[in-house]
This record gives sequence, structure tokens and C-alpha cells, in this order.
Amino acid sequence: MALVRFADRLCDAIERKESPVVVGLDPQLDQIPAFLRRACQSVYGTTPRAAAEALWHFNRTLIDAVYDLVPAVKPQLAFYERYGVEGLRTYVRTVRYAREAGLLVIADGKRNDIGPTAAFYADAFLGHASLFGQDVPAEFAADALTVNGYLGGDGIAPFVERAESYGTGLFVLVKTSNPSSGDLQDLDVSGRPLYEHMGALVERWGESTRSACGYSSVGAVVGATYPEQGCRLRALMPHTLFLVPGYGTQGATAADVAGCFDARGRGAVVNASRSICFAFQREPYASRYGAAGYGAAARAATEQMRVEIQRALPRG
Amino acid sequence: MALVRFADRLCDAIERKESPVVVGLDPQLDQIPAFLRRACQSVYGTTPRAAAEALWHFNRTLIDAVYDLVPAVKPQLAFYERYGVEGLRTYVRTVRYAREAGLLVIADGKRNDIGPTAAFYADAFLGHASLFGQDVPAEFAADALTVNGYLGGDGIAPFVERAESYGTGLFVLVKTSNPSSGDLQDLDVSGRPLYEHMGALVERWGESTRSACGYSSVGAVVGATYPEQGCRLRALMPHTLFLVPGYGTQGATAADVAGCFDARGRGAVVNASRSICFAFQREPYASRYGAAGYGAAARAATEQMRVEIQRALPRG
Repeated sequence: MALVRFADRLCDAIERKESPVVVGLDPQLDQIPAFLRRACQSVYGTTPRAAAEALWHFNRTLIDAVYDLVPAVKPQLAFYERYGVEGLRTYVRTVRYAREAGLLVIADGKRNDIGPTAAFYADAFLGHASLFGQDVPAEFAADALTVNGYLGGDGIAPFVERAESYGTGLFVLVKTSNPSSGDLQDLDVSGRPLYEHMGALVERWGESTRSACGYSSVGAVVGATYPEQGCRLRALMPHTLFLVPGYGTQGATAADVAGCFDARGRGAVVNASRSICFAFQREPYASRYGAAGYGAAARAATEQMRVEIQRALPRG
Repeated sequence: MALVRFADRLCDAIERKESPVVVGLDPQLDQIPAFLRRACQSVYGTTPRAAAEALWHFNRTLIDAVYDLVPAVKPQLAFYERYGVEGLRTYVRTVRYAREAGLLVIADGKRNDIGPTAAFYADAFLGHASLFGQDVPAEFAADALTVNGYLGGDGIAPFVERAESYGTGLFVLVKTSNPSSGDLQDLDVSGRPLYEHMGALVERWGESTRSACGYSSVGAVVGATYPEQGCRLRALMPHTLFLVPGYGTQGATAADVAGCFDARGRGAVVNASRSICFAFQREPYASRYGAAGYGAAARAATEQMRVEIQRALPRG
């Protein structure tokens, strides 16, 4: 069977689900419903295991609630690493469960290192591990990984190689959504901001992985909170899929992300984490669903976000 | 008891051990002695557990061999994540064992994210995790963490806060040791390379954590393979400790790293990973110690490196 490239898999999933929404699985123990926390604490005590079980049940309900509405989910590794080995066990269970539900999984780890070491991260998240001469699937492997390109080409090459070999993908940070992203990313380099140079590198790093959908498997992270910059990067990076964080709690709206899509309304996925995972805490979802209905609240918030974005996009 | 800041702890350890050498614990399964691999495979089968056990025994022997010669060890996370949850269990055991042996541990994870998420990485590696309202030590916590600053100040602030609260530290990537580090880091920004701007930010981010030794707990990663740049950064960053990778296998010598130290021969630690961990594979250590003596070979290589660097440094 021919390998299907990540860009094609993602574009196909967006089309099938009629949705460019990615749900960020960033569970915070102190934010998840109290009944779920108490249930796990009563079984496992005040232990990392109890925390990890609570996060797992929370994630599973969210996946059940949104799997048919979105092409992908994006677990952020920090939320799991915080609880050590048990936390990562929840990450692994989450990735498997999401893939069984037909979702693509973007591991948000922002990994980076020099070439020979980056190869091990690439094995861990996008490929296989070598085990006593045997090639076995890596336990942490997902469909794609976010990557930080500050180390330059040789730090990216191993990720691109694994993407080619395994039909996986990466998203390189270009312009991030946080308030101080400009400290480095906006510095003027020969009349252009640094993030545009990073964007040009990303477009080039992806050349060998361009596929049927017109995009490469080396995507870019472009924050929704900087709409003008997103528009400009869209024009500069015609073969690069954008992963657009910052929707919802960070303040970006559908109008803000529209410029990250191409003229046919394709080429980007928009992530929301807190505004979906914890939709049950805010109106109108709080009174409609309550804490017990956190899954239904997440589904309603996802549907709402999908509609908002679809309305803001050109028809493909 | 007053909290001792990371910079003071590191400077004190360097002085006590009379050594600025850091041993990178980057175990590669296919490089460790065959007898050790076979022993673990025969007990645990061809499993990630077997790989993780082999890495753990290898690391333990290395720590036993060098603990009195160096102030710190630096496990690189990719080498552990590659084997999933079992690999990270070996990371945890390694960190604990090294600390019990009186070593500082620098977790080389190059983590980075936007502020609210970076806070969870900071909890995971430099602080405590919140567990059902209780503050407990995070399982992955080390004495310091390497961090990528591409996201700017709000992505760094949580690490600095944890460093202040817990006496831990961070090392922000400034000029990395790899061949293509210049792709981004050397770009000209208003007449100065980007890495100097990053260096200036790091110096500023560390201001609040300066301590008795004259340095702050926000250090910088400055590759040994770029000696001129290291010299210049030393002058520009008088309060910043340097973590200098690239010695040995990557090609840098004692003369190359000398410029990363201050006029008293302080202010930097130099990391070597492969040239120490796998010293038993090369001469003169291979014929002297063989694979069975990989610990003794690592010790001899560490002593040799310490002598080489001490000879190249001014006397404090």
C-alpha cells in the first residue's frame, strides 16, 4: 500500500469532517469537573496516578464528544509531563484512543535539538524506535509534532525524513500567538521581520514532501492573534499548511483566522483548547449543560466554532 | 533554611570538584556494550522495558565512575522519550541516582511554549506539581532545564519564577553548536547577529536571579564549536553562566571553549556526551579498558577532558 502523506491525510480529514477545527487536549486537573477529580482521588489517593486517571477520563469524554466534528486533536505535552510517568501514560492512552476514533493527533511538544539528537525526538514522535535491531513503533508516536526551528536546517532534517518515511508531519513555529512573540520573531532582518525568514525556511524545508493536495508535510504554527501577519505569511508560504492556535480564550475570532486560509478556504487548521475543553464553565454552556455535561458543552462549543469559521471563509 | 540559588549551587560545585566538566547522559542502545544489552534482553525480552533497563544500568555505571569528578550531569530527554514511558522511568531513576551521588542534574529538554503552558513545563522540570490542591515535587524535576527562547519573554517568565521559588535554573539556547545554527541565529539584525539579541534578552531575563557568585540562574547555551562567537557573548553577558556543548565528538577543543569562561576561569560548564559515555569504543581507552571497562574508560576520558580545560583556563 502506498504511503499517504500527512498533508493529504489532514486535507482529506478536513474535507470529510467539513471542519478545520482542532481541539487542543490540555487538561488541567484543577479545572476539570470536581466529581471526576473526587472519583479518581477516592480510588487512587492523592497520587500522580489519580491525577493521570482523571485527565484520561476527561480526555476520553472530550474525544467521544467531538470525534466526528474535527479532523484532529492536539494534546500539549506539558500538561502530561507535569504528572511524570503517569501523566505520559495518559498521553499515550489519549493518542491511541483518538486514533481509534479516526482522528489525527498532533503532538504539541515543540521539540528541537541538533541533528543527531533531533533524530531521536523524530523517532519518538513521528517514527519508530530501534529496539535491539528491530524497528518497532515508538510509544509516543503521533501523526504530527510541533517543532521549534531556532537551531536551523540540520535540526529539522530528521523530522522531515521521518515525515517522508512514515507519512507523518511537523509544524514549525513561525509566528506564535503569545503577547511577547515579537521579542525575537518581529526583529527586523534586512527589512523583513524574522518570522518571515523562518517562514521562508519552512516553505523550503517542506519542498520534498509536497503532495497531491498542494501542501507539504512541513507545516507552520501561525498564531491567530496576529491576523495581519497571518495574511502575509499565507501569501509567502503557498505550500505550507498552517496550524493556527490562539482562538477563543486567547482572544482571536473567526475573522482573525480567515487570512490564514487560501483562496479556496483551505490550507489551515485552527486550534482551540481551553474554550472547548472547559466550555462547561462559561455561558451559554454552563447553564445549559453544567459540569456533568462537560462533553456535551465541548461538542456545542466545537460546533459553534466550526460554524463561525466556515462563515468567515471563502467557499472552496 | 534560606534557599540557595542555582547559580551559587553550580558555582560551588564547580569549585569543590575543581572541574567545569558536565557529562551528557545520552545513552544509545545500539552503542552500549553488547553484554549489557544481551543481559537485559534475556531478562525482559525484546521490549522497551529491556531497552530502558539497559540504559539505566549504563547510566548508573557512568554516574558511579564520574560523580566525584564533575559538578553536574546532563541527561538529554530525546534519548529517553524514544522508549516511551519505560524510557522516562529510566530518566527519573537516573536523575534521582545522580542527585543522591551529590550531582546537579541539568535536564536537556529545550522546552518552550506560550506563558500559561510554559508554566506547566516549568512545574514539571523545575518545580512542583499541583495535586488535588497539594503541592508535590514533580517526578521529572531536575536542578536546571535547557529552554528555547524563540517565543520571547512571556514564554521564559514561568521558568524564571520557578527558578526563584525552588533554587533551580535554566539555560536558554543562544548560539547552538550544530552546523546550521546560523540559519536563524546568525541573521543580521541591525548590524548584530540574532544570537547576540537573544544573548541580551537572556542577560536581562536573569536580572532578578543574580546571586552571590555574580551570576544569575538564567544561563545560556553557547556552542563550543563557535569559539569567536563564544568570546563575544562572554563579553556581552557578564552575569550569565554558559552551558557549552560540542566538546569532543562534535569537534571542539579546550582552546575553543576557553573564551566562554570569565577572566578568573569561571562562569561556564562544558558538556561532553558521546566522547565520554562511549570512550570505551575509541583509543587509547578501547585497548586499555575494553567494553567491560566502559565506566573506567568514561572516568579516564572525563579526567583527561578536565585536565585539558584546566590547562587552557586562566587561574582564578
